[in-house]
Amino acid sequence: MTAALLSPDELETALRAIGRERYHDRHPFHRMLHAGECTIDQVRAWALNRYCYQRIVPLKDSTILARMDDTELRREWRRRIVDHDGDVGDIPEGGLRAWLALTDSLGFDRTYVRSLDGALPGVRFACDAYLHFVRDKTLLEAIASSLTELFSPTIIAERVQGMIAGYDFVSHDTLRYFEKRLTQAPRDSDFALGYVREHATTPESQALVLGALRFKCDMLWAQLDAIEHVYVHGGPSPGAWRPGSGMRRE
Amino acid sequence: MTAALLSPDELETALRAIGRERYHDRHPFHRMLHAGECTIDQVRAWALNRYCYQRIVPLKDSTILARMDDTELRREWRRRIVDHDGDVGDIPEGGLRAWLALTDSLGFDRTYVRSLDGALPGVRFACDAYLHFVRDKTLLEAIASSLTELFSPTIIAERVQGMIAGYDFVSHDTLRYFEKRLTQAPRDSDFALGYVREHATTPESQALVLGALRFKCDMLWAQLDAIEHVYVHGGPSPGAWRPGSGMRRE
Repeated sequence: MTAALLSPDELETALRAIGRERYHDRHPFHRMLHAGECTIDQVRAWALNRYCYQRIVPLKDSTILARMDDTELRREWRRRIVDHDGDVGDIPEGGLRAWLALTDSLGFDRTYVRSLDGALPGVRFACDAYLHFVRDKTLLEAIASSLTELFSPTIIAERVQGMIAGYDFVSHDTLRYFEKRLTQAPRDSDFALGYVREHATTPESQALVLGALRFKCDMLWAQLDAIEHVYVHGGPSPGAWRPGSGMRRE
Repeated sequence: MTAALLSPDELETALRAIGRERYHDRHPFHRMLHAGECTIDQVRAWALNRYCYQRIVPLKDSTILARMDDTELRREWRRRIVDHDGDVGDIPEGGLRAWLALTDSLGFDRTYVRSLDGALPGVRFACDAYLHFVRDKTLLEAIASSLTELFSPTIIAERVQGMIAGYDFVSHDTLRYFEKRLTQAPRDSDFALGYVREHATTPESQALVLGALRFKCDMLWAQLDAIEHVYVHGGPSPGAWRPGSGMRRE
């Protein structure tokens, strides 16, 4: 079946509709997390596993960068890598280090977090799928897959507010990763949205763009499914993190 | 840390120990499935999602075949592709067609099953991870990842017996995929085990082989986690198969 050609505004409307249906702010585990209903070990499981995703972000952005045969595009995209890797001496601090500040504050050993040894296979497979997607699909799809950032300011605001209110073991300082994203994400999504509006100009390329955003929502959702399955429903998971392990010896 | 060099027998013992700890016969969903405790829609969800895995098998075997720079090795490995793809006119019938006979018998539309549209993202990401593994890791690791076949005859025997006894909607004919695997799997695992025993002759290569089998067990386990999460615990999963959809119109 062939779809009709959408105007740029209609395409943006279709993209935003996918977010309303599939973005992980609708996931039951996020609702628990933001409502302050998680135990500290459930928050730890989330922070430990989410590190897999944080780790993939500069890898996928470097992969996309390496596919951009255009100086202006690369200059624009390069900022994302700086945002996550920071610079020498951690000034500015990158998103990965800011995430480790969160896992530090939850008592994890950094070597354990970085090893990914305790991460859930389902979370690792989803994150790796993202890296393979931006390597193997078209550049347009790779850029479009970043459009979940259109929806992240809302979830981040909810998350920070809800977690500060709900948990005495987190603070604005340990959640500083998200505070930065509040300004970085809109800047990034403005660019990606403009690029997609300008370059997805056939029904075929528009279908690829919509599919790329669906894929990205699915990979974020699948991470929370895996975490909820094991750490809320108590499903067994041979080899994955068990509360009490992977902590710093004080 | 460096491990000690294992003898071939010690390596085999270590491989079999991984199966006892991590193979998916220990997964709660398999226990339900084999005990006849699943609803027909839970069996449908399993068969529909497991098709993603069946689809990957000849793709991963072709990927491995393409990395074997040796006629004897390719002759040996090629049989696996015949086992799953069959031959012209479906004589012999391949494993993929035999799997579609099962999804047919459960009422699914073949076009829907083949489209993977209703499959869970978590299942698709796990299966794709397997394909990427055999493409990106060493040939030794790719071959070692097939060693879950050491453990499959037991689970298959349990499964066929348990499902025939527990469900009036399956039969020896609709489960014929598994009957064939009872003879194919031991032949294949004998070869792969012999290859690994012969070629994993350093502590480093033995660690890779053990890691490859752990990876494979994890990717099988993660598929059942995703199915159990949605179709047993009732977790939402935007866009995935819902009972009643994807069926043949009789």
